[in-house]
Amino acid sequence: MPQMLAETGRMVEQALDALLPVPEGPEAKLLEAMRYSSLGGGKRLRGFLVMEVASLFGVSPTCAARVAASVEMLHAYSLIHDDLPAMDDDDLRRGKPSCHKAFDEATAILAGDALQASAFEVLAEEDTHSDPQVRADLVLALALASGMRGMVGGQMIDMMSEGRQLTLDEIARLHSLKTGRLIQYSAEAGAILGRAPASQRHAIASYGHDLGAAFQIADDVLDVTASAAELGKTAGKDAASGKATYVTLLGVERAQRQAEMLAEQAVAHLEQFGPRADRLVSLAKFVVSRRS
Amino acid sequence: MPQMLAETGRMVEQALDALLPVPEGPEAKLLEAMRYSSLGGGKRLRGFLVMEVASLFGVSPTCAARVAASVEMLHAYSLIHDDLPAMDDDDLRRGKPSCHKAFDEATAILAGDALQASAFEVLAEEDTHSDPQVRADLVLALALASGMRGMVGGQMIDMMSEGRQLTLDEIARLHSLKTGRLIQYSAEAGAILGRAPASQRHAIASYGHDLGAAFQIADDVLDVTASAAELGKTAGKDAASGKATYVTLLGVERAQRQAEMLAEQAVAHLEQFGPRADRLVSLAKFVVSRRS
Repeated sequence: MPQMLAETGRMVEQALDALLPVPEGPEAKLLEAMRYSSLGGGKRLRGFLVMEVASLFGVSPTCAARVAASVEMLHAYSLIHDDLPAMDDDDLRRGKPSCHKAFDEATAILAGDALQASAFEVLAEEDTHSDPQVRADLVLALALASGMRGMVGGQMIDMMSEGRQLTLDEIARLHSLKTGRLIQYSAEAGAILGRAPASQRHAIASYGHDLGAAFQIADDVLDVTASAAELGKTAGKDAASGKATYVTLLGVERAQRQAEMLAEQAVAHLEQFGPRADRLVSLAKFVVSRRS
Repeated sequence: MPQMLAETGRMVEQALDALLPVPEGPEAKLLEAMRYSSLGGGKRLRGFLVMEVASLFGVSPTCAARVAASVEMLHAYSLIHDDLPAMDDDDLRRGKPSCHKAFDEATAILAGDALQASAFEVLAEEDTHSDPQVRADLVLALALASGMRGMVGGQMIDMMSEGRQLTLDEIARLHSLKTGRLIQYSAEAGAILGRAPASQRHAIASYGHDLGAAFQIADDVLDVTASAAELGKTAGKDAASGKATYVTLLGVERAQRQAEMLAEQAVAHLEQFGPRADRLVSLAKFVVSRRS
């Protein structure tokens, strides 16, 4: 699995590199920061999901790579803003200084803002798909997944929850908004691109939903069991900030079992696709067994 | 003119109010901050432009009001982020505490992020226009106007310019990116919504371009000649930060004359529309004669 991820990751990286302009002019620093935080790192889980699902529906890899690059831009913006001093105040990201450390706070805020705009720009461009209905659908789905009813809403709940004891249900909703929606979108985007029939789009969305939940619980487990060197970001953060997680409520073992169960549930949604979905099956298994 | 602005402003306000959800749940604070910074204030210049140009092309006011609300969301996000301590560090906006003062920095960053996503969400929804090509065109135009090659790029140049003496050409480019592109987009969006013929869309874009330039020079003049009470934001900011402006380079009188000349140039592009464009003509005159 890591090889497959790395292979697809290179395609996504190339698309990102081509879509982000070469830094020049008095605003060069902005473009450098955008490139710094979106190129050369990350598992590209979201991009991989777009590419793999798109290939199930016969979408050209060139179009899929643009959508994959778009969601990775969106993801990079969220990491930049989450790391800011007023938010999680984190100095380390993907094994290197976070954006506001490598540049400065103002540049980091603006780089995040511009990456969000670029993500929508790429989706709306004709090169992404000849059918404007597909492009408008992609934009709408990304906006819903990443805005107040999705990722940003989840990040707000996360900020409000420090030092408070959330219930399992509350944590599940937090996770679903903060990371789940964007992972689900990544899978669904491949189906939108491929103009998949409603039933297949629904199956893919369900796969993405359960995969996202499994991913986040596994992340909570890794925060406790992995080192900063393995993670490429600060470890033990959740405990230090007094945040309730699946691990603080269930313990490491039960949390890990819960993640594995969700991964199996994700895989079950793929049945109708047969062996063509093998790589998506492998991804679900990888997500709950990875060490970083 | 102030009456016409206020009248249209009320329609835009109603659309914004309907599009922004009622705050509830653990993320209520995010929604409150979004409403705080986008409702109940501002000249609604951008929204007015969308509505007026759209009416030239016979677009339904309901659709136009959605696009107007979308650009006002985008504008509100940019003001929230510009006011942050790491950016312009401004405590006052539209006559009340800026977002990070009324709430906190983390909430202000997230409210800006979510307003940006909402702006694109509204454009991509079917209610905005039945033709997906129109919706995709609106998204693309807004992303280009507001991202790295537009507003955010301009804000970066502005941050890099503090204490440096820019030339007139450099200031013109900064203005064009930072505020001009979004004002031009606002006018153009009305023409996109109305599926205007290319020549008319071009004329409207040129009007928007010159109007935006006139607006910004008038803003530089007001920063020197108006009081904080008139402006509803801190006055004399440019001089205090050592920023070069049209006024520091040309003096108040020549800058004011330049703004008026640009406003006349803007009006000249409207000739083909005859008296139907009278309100857009009035707007151009108002922009360079306003006191706030």
